[in-house]
Amino acid sequence: MSELKNDRFLRALLREPVDRTPVWMMRQAGRYLPEYRATRAKAGDFMSLCMNPELACEVTIQPLDRYPLDAAILFSDILTIPDAMGLGLRFAQGEGPQFDNPVRTEADVNKLFVPDPEGELKYVMDAVRTIRKELDGRVPLIGFSGSPWTLATYMVEGSGTKEYAHVKGMMFDRPDLMHKVLDTLAQSVTSYLNAQIAAGAQAVQIFDTWGGVLTPRDYKEFSLRYMKQIVDGLNRESEGRKVPVILFTKGGGQWLEDMADTGCDALGLDWTTDIGEARKRVGDKVALQGNMDPSMLYASPERIAEEVETILSSFGNGNGHVFNLGHGIHQHVDPEHAGAFIKAVTELSPKYHK
Amino acid sequence: MSELKNDRFLRALLREPVDRTPVWMMRQAGRYLPEYRATRAKAGDFMSLCMNPELACEVTIQPLDRYPLDAAILFSDILTIPDAMGLGLRFAQGEGPQFDNPVRTEADVNKLFVPDPEGELKYVMDAVRTIRKELDGRVPLIGFSGSPWTLATYMVEGSGTKEYAHVKGMMFDRPDLMHKVLDTLAQSVTSYLNAQIAAGAQAVQIFDTWGGVLTPRDYKEFSLRYMKQIVDGLNRESEGRKVPVILFTKGGGQWLEDMADTGCDALGLDWTTDIGEARKRVGDKVALQGNMDPSMLYASPERIAEEVETILSSFGNGNGHVFNLGHGIHQHVDPEHAGAFIKAVTELSPKYHK
Repeated sequence: MSELKNDRFLRALLREPVDRTPVWMMRQAGRYLPEYRATRAKAGDFMSLCMNPELACEVTIQPLDRYPLDAAILFSDILTIPDAMGLGLRFAQGEGPQFDNPVRTEADVNKLFVPDPEGELKYVMDAVRTIRKELDGRVPLIGFSGSPWTLATYMVEGSGTKEYAHVKGMMFDRPDLMHKVLDTLAQSVTSYLNAQIAAGAQAVQIFDTWGGVLTPRDYKEFSLRYMKQIVDGLNRESEGRKVPVILFTKGGGQWLEDMADTGCDALGLDWTTDIGEARKRVGDKVALQGNMDPSMLYASPERIAEEVETILSSFGNGNGHVFNLGHGIHQHVDPEHAGAFIKAVTELSPKYHK
Repeated sequence: MSELKNDRFLRALLREPVDRTPVWMMRQAGRYLPEYRATRAKAGDFMSLCMNPELACEVTIQPLDRYPLDAAILFSDILTIPDAMGLGLRFAQGEGPQFDNPVRTEADVNKLFVPDPEGELKYVMDAVRTIRKELDGRVPLIGFSGSPWTLATYMVEGSGTKEYAHVKGMMFDRPDLMHKVLDTLAQSVTSYLNAQIAAGAQAVQIFDTWGGVLTPRDYKEFSLRYMKQIVDGLNRESEGRKVPVILFTKGGGQWLEDMADTGCDALGLDWTTDIGEARKRVGDKVALQGNMDPSMLYASPERIAEEVETILSSFGNGNGHVFNLGHGIHQHVDPEHAGAFIKAVTELSPKYHK
């Protein structure tokens, strides 16, 4: 593998000194970019794009050609694992993901298995290998997975939900079944992320999109516990370097101390927590990634730069900050505004690293 | 007015001793009840039901006839104020509320005015008077309003949103305009709630449904500040009794101390905060209302009772707890399960008030 030319992102995750705060954007390869929409049109539907390593590589690289980003993130979907388990993933137009075979009964649960990352999920590993080759050491590549709880939410509901009737019904009334689902998922995610690391991922992030809809008790028992199981099982070194692990629970601002105790290297923060307060709470246990409100990209470039300064100054001097949005970039954002955001981070952050 | 036969709810909000923890449910007059659906069908559309004082009274009382609830809440919509401002509220089938004339420009903002509660909004005050008469002192009647930020979100977006592009765009780039909208709304809500109190409301709740989508800085400047302005302007006594004020910010668990500092009497909690921890944080400044996950009502009656006990025991002995769900009851809940919830509170709570 080529030597890494820009390791700011990896160094910041390990709280090592950097010349400026590294920056990337969740969902940076996405619909707000016209070049993404063109490649997506070529691929056909969304999953065909995910399953084509060359096209997945193409959209992964696109934002790097536009902006001075410090990391690339594998282009894929969070629902690849349940799809590989045979649940039949579909993306209905304008309706979000749906499963043909949701997991509702004990019989459904008993059919679940740990997919082979180089079998059913080989297309993901091929994408990782293709992207690493194409990146040629330009920036590090981030691998990722959904958290067990987040995957289970989609698998049990079968589609998006506001009420979580099925998945919480199972959690409340059949915790034994829910734990079985989550344990199988934790094993699957561990093996999936380790395979991504073996294929070339240089850091990994676990996206816990739905952890924030739980009570504190249920969060610890049904989401955080299984993320810790994954953190414990990951290969944390590859190619002679540490492979940092980032945990991101949307709406998890009240539980940062518990998240930091899992042994991960960094926490992703959404924008409802002040990053300076978060830093005080977690001390030097973990680095922090975030946390500008993604809707700020609808504001003027001047206002965006002002907000970047506010967040940099709230974090303060020193190591351990990766700049990012607090959630994925919205599809209707003007790419020029995304550029203004990234430029502001690169220009305003060096003074915090003197 | 008739003497109040059950004042548990009012006493608990003022942290006075009670024989058991009082209980009511947000959205207790709602679609999960077949009798509500029957009255709603009779009324035609949703706003016709809100605007008909006799039918609004009928649905307000319905849950009291089924369950031993300790409070009634005015049946109305949170968007009555913007509707009275001439924005043209509509409920499209399956799409949630929409405004024909969203507030986007300076000219739109300049047209806003404080509606006369006994003019454009007289139908609401008539409903309050009708319900109070019909209740005949059975339990106290809660009046309510949306918070200024929550109303502004709907008014500027014109409909539901996940991205808040318009309202946050205005907040970020034209804070002067946004403050003007919010100040007009704070004046309107103050006058609206004072009129409800004059008409017979015995407690009031401010619903800040969308405060939780803001950064801590923006929450304080654009949501909390205007709720405090309202609290400061309310008539806190009526019919020789104190009229308690409850603030509820969904997703506001990180800001409870700031909310308690507004001078309100009680905070509504969603289910993502442990109520015992919340009690430690706010001390004896305010009472707490909440906070069972509404999805718990999809579980078995046994599991529901177990969760009620967990929450009661987390709050612990002593005064200042009103039991409620952490958000409105979901429409697909079995009314028997709602009954099991209320029964559990009445049966399990007396031991915490010895």
